[in-house]
Amino acid sequence: MTTTSLYGPVQSDLPRVEEALDSIKDTSFPALAQMLAHVLGAEGKRLRPALALLSGRYQRYDLELLVPLAASVELLHTATLVHDDVLDDAELRRKGATINHLRGNEAAVLLGDYLISHSFHLCSSLDSQFASRVVGQTTNQVCEGELLQIHHRNDLDLDQETYLQIITCKTAVLCASCCLLGATFAGADGACVELLRQYGQCLGTAFQIQDDILDIVGEESTVGKTLGLDMLKGKLTLPIIHFLATAPHEHRALLRSLLKSRDADKVERIRNLILPSPSVEYATWRAKSLISRARAAVAALPDSPSRQVLDTLADFVITRPM
Amino acid sequence: MTTTSLYGPVQSDLPRVEEALDSIKDTSFPALAQMLAHVLGAEGKRLRPALALLSGRYQRYDLELLVPLAASVELLHTATLVHDDVLDDAELRRKGATINHLRGNEAAVLLGDYLISHSFHLCSSLDSQFASRVVGQTTNQVCEGELLQIHHRNDLDLDQETYLQIITCKTAVLCASCCLLGATFAGADGACVELLRQYGQCLGTAFQIQDDILDIVGEESTVGKTLGLDMLKGKLTLPIIHFLATAPHEHRALLRSLLKSRDADKVERIRNLILPSPSVEYATWRAKSLISRARAAVAALPDSPSRQVLDTLADFVITRPM
Repeated sequence: MTTTSLYGPVQSDLPRVEEALDSIKDTSFPALAQMLAHVLGAEGKRLRPALALLSGRYQRYDLELLVPLAASVELLHTATLVHDDVLDDAELRRKGATINHLRGNEAAVLLGDYLISHSFHLCSSLDSQFASRVVGQTTNQVCEGELLQIHHRNDLDLDQETYLQIITCKTAVLCASCCLLGATFAGADGACVELLRQYGQCLGTAFQIQDDILDIVGEESTVGKTLGLDMLKGKLTLPIIHFLATAPHEHRALLRSLLKSRDADKVERIRNLILPSPSVEYATWRAKSLISRARAAVAALPDSPSRQVLDTLADFVITRPM
Repeated sequence: MTTTSLYGPVQSDLPRVEEALDSIKDTSFPALAQMLAHVLGAEGKRLRPALALLSGRYQRYDLELLVPLAASVELLHTATLVHDDVLDDAELRRKGATINHLRGNEAAVLLGDYLISHSFHLCSSLDSQFASRVVGQTTNQVCEGELLQIHHRNDLDLDQETYLQIITCKTAVLCASCCLLGATFAGADGACVELLRQYGQCLGTAFQIQDDILDIVGEESTVGKTLGLDMLKGKLTLPIIHFLATAPHEHRALLRSLLKSRDADKVERIRNLILPSPSVEYATWRAKSLISRARAAVAALPDSPSRQVLDTLADFVITRPM
């Protein structure tokens, strides 16, 4: 399945979201317009807008309401990528150079702020405050998740529960909110909204676990962003947490010392230690079981042109690098 | 006049704003709560909340509406301070250490994001979208101003017009919005709202010019934040722009070479060059004429318990380090 047909019945409406994003780029300040064109360019997969539109098909599908919402969540997501890349000193994103690499950290911090601000401003263009409230609350949680992650950096005793709390806040809640907003603005009933929210939450969590697995096992040329950063930046992810809790004693000790080291070949050595162990497989299993839960939520939804797509999308998140 | 009585009839309502700010600090994550307590502590002058409340006295003074607004603008202002300190590598703010100095740039970037997010979330708690729209638009402009400033860093040919555009966006628009929001939520008529908006805009511009003057002539112990940073960071301010345009040829050449240099005594030498010239006086004159315009707007307002305070406040902005 190619990306072009991935989003089924809403694929042909994504250009409307692109137009809304284009209108943000329309500024009288050329250097800013260039940066916006760079980060909002066509390389994004627009997963979050697609989730909002797909969920918005569960009753009255109203693009006038859904397009600003979909653009707003994509702006917010892009803002977190721009700031994440500053925090991670990353050089590669969506197969291009990061803004911090091209223009420096300061421009990247401000560009991220600008994107957050425009995200809220777009929400505030809708008649009801509901979207502003949900997006505000979601962003609060995203920031809390990121702060919790920074707080636990280099914490070799990080447990799975805290890891899940971090990734739920920083990634899953936004996916859940995309579904919740889309369904709510379509006028879906409460049960349907809740199933879609659960779907988004499970999908987002699995997505982040897969992202973390790819940081260890992926190829930069395929994934399109700098890899190995979690290990370099002292962010413990599920395979590492599992390894530190279950591997033979001397292997754990070796991983602990590698994680603390500043050796140039640190990432390579960690990879070589973890890959033969069952820890990546364990993380994959956790992601898969979340995807099963996402698919169960979809199965309980009333039938609609979106249902099959949401089901396929769930698998896609963990079977190919996104 | 002491700060405690500075805000006249709304002084006694500021504790309500503090309570609203306290509720943001109420998080289950202790490290975050500590950072919030640090940046939202009592050292702030709460000028922007005071502007919102004072403007809110121009008709029905309704604290239920004004307090969330006032807290929202203070959160936004604090966010810009936190991110500014990252951009400037500043160590001192409101007479205490900056968050980037205490916890590193990454925590400071995320804390700023968290404050922006909470600012919007508070706005979205109001019934009408009006505040969300104004705050969203204001934040867009603040970010544009900051980005324009970064873009013109080390631009020794920066002209006064661009400088004014930068400080209008990054500082004045927020003060103008505080007044506009306060007056609008009080139900003031259009003419009154516009006069208060003009007042805030002139006051904010003068405030920033005074801030920039203090960066050159101030004492850190009095001003309470790291000074000399504009010169170190290549940000041209009004006294410097004036000097580069009007000083004798050899003085201009010396200033240009000092601004480009990396000497340890750079700031001291720039100070010694500029202080005897009329350039600081020129900048002060520009600030004073803006304050005259602010006071003229106030004079055209209907009489109210706020009017005298707004008038006194205008002078205060340029006569003492704030």
